[in-house]
Amino acid sequence: MVERQTGVALWRQIADRMRLAINNGDFDETGMMPPETVLAARFGVNRHTVRSAMATLADEGIVRAMQGVGTRIERRDRLSFPISRRTRFSQGLGNQARDIEGRMLEADTDVAPAVVAQALGLAAGTPCVRIETVNSADKRPISRATHYFPAERFAEMAEAYERTRSITAAFRELDVSDYVRRSTEISAIHAEGDDMRHLKLSPGAIILVATAINTDLTGIPIQYSRTRFAADRVKLTVEPENDGIGDPG
Amino acid sequence: MVERQTGVALWRQIADRMRLAINNGDFDETGMMPPETVLAARFGVNRHTVRSAMATLADEGIVRAMQGVGTRIERRDRLSFPISRRTRFSQGLGNQARDIEGRMLEADTDVAPAVVAQALGLAAGTPCVRIETVNSADKRPISRATHYFPAERFAEMAEAYERTRSITAAFRELDVSDYVRRSTEISAIHAEGDDMRHLKLSPGAIILVATAINTDLTGIPIQYSRTRFAADRVKLTVEPENDGIGDPG
Repeated sequence: MVERQTGVALWRQIADRMRLAINNGDFDETGMMPPETVLAARFGVNRHTVRSAMATLADEGIVRAMQGVGTRIERRDRLSFPISRRTRFSQGLGNQARDIEGRMLEADTDVAPAVVAQALGLAAGTPCVRIETVNSADKRPISRATHYFPAERFAEMAEAYERTRSITAAFRELDVSDYVRRSTEISAIHAEGDDMRHLKLSPGAIILVATAINTDLTGIPIQYSRTRFAADRVKLTVEPENDGIGDPG
Repeated sequence: MVERQTGVALWRQIADRMRLAINNGDFDETGMMPPETVLAARFGVNRHTVRSAMATLADEGIVRAMQGVGTRIERRDRLSFPISRRTRFSQGLGNQARDIEGRMLEADTDVAPAVVAQALGLAAGTPCVRIETVNSADKRPISRATHYFPAERFAEMAEAYERTRSITAAFRELDVSDYVRRSTEISAIHAEGDDMRHLKLSPGAIILVATAINTDLTGIPIQYSRTRFAADRVKLTVEPENDGIGDPG
């Protein structure tokens, strides 16, 4: 059922439901989206709304309009990003994308916000290196993250990240040969201005927020991150632990 | 920055940002929300929008208008629901709520949808017991779930759940003394009609969807669940595994 006056535009609700139907395999027999009139009837909306919803799915790379043929389904599912003790951004997506890239937008040394200081076991007001990044898979932005590192131990973190484009590699340069995820908190909110822009999200999109604490192998917190994933493009998966401390990270 | 024409109403964006500010502790010094005029200036919107956003937060039990005093912050944070090998709904919320309740809305024996059959290692078309539940914490609905169990082994599941109001207890009655979570997949979408109604969500709200597979201790899949959490009320937490197989469940 479609809800009107919900604070979420109708075309967006329909786009969400089409995405779900595609992921459920509703159109797998033909691999094509049904005609606009059929979709309009199915979802109880007019063709204009269907067209707006379809344009969003096309922007997301999920469907593609083929001149004279109809709209083909290009991609069923979102990327799957695993959350575990061994979470590494650079490896998380495995072979789901050919080209995983991390880019630094900005870096600075700030006084840690209270919630960060607490998570890292630091006294209020302790300086932290803050790094802002955006990560892409096959040129498509999928997450935007803010990372904090205790500045005393990791003064060179921004430079190391800029050189290596990888948190894991940067830690190695700074004598942290390995690290583990202590905890991850997952919530969901509507994307806001800055994240919308960097993630090239269509307006009103949802982001999954993963707030994580990493520690070195002696259990000392070394990183606090708040990663915003485009929920249209990524789902998070939690699977049994492979306690492979010491594996190549 | 506030985005206009995003497909998400302005008051909803502002409610999201206020919730975030509250959770960040921005108003902890006084424990009160600033006056409407101050909030309107901070968020760059008019007082009418601030009032709508505040009404939503009041509905959610986050703030409370106190006659002649102002708007008090009642609750900072969302409930934290842990995802682990030992996830049990009845215990997941621990002491965060006094009264955790599971209620069965409906039950039936259906042919398993393709995705469910595959997850449970069943041939396409195998019948499954489907149970629809809604869970509340202190009378407030927090999640709506659809559970599937292979019908051959768990023909009595609906009756057992109805009696015990707990999946864990129902499994025990059906000779599954213990079970573990094999995997959980987490995504986020806008709430739709049926979930909105059962979860008493304000329109346009986001839900966190956790799709889970549980197995018995020999590794045979026994349950597939799709749980929709109100993202306004619940966050999911992933923490290191306590491999306590055999613990009281």
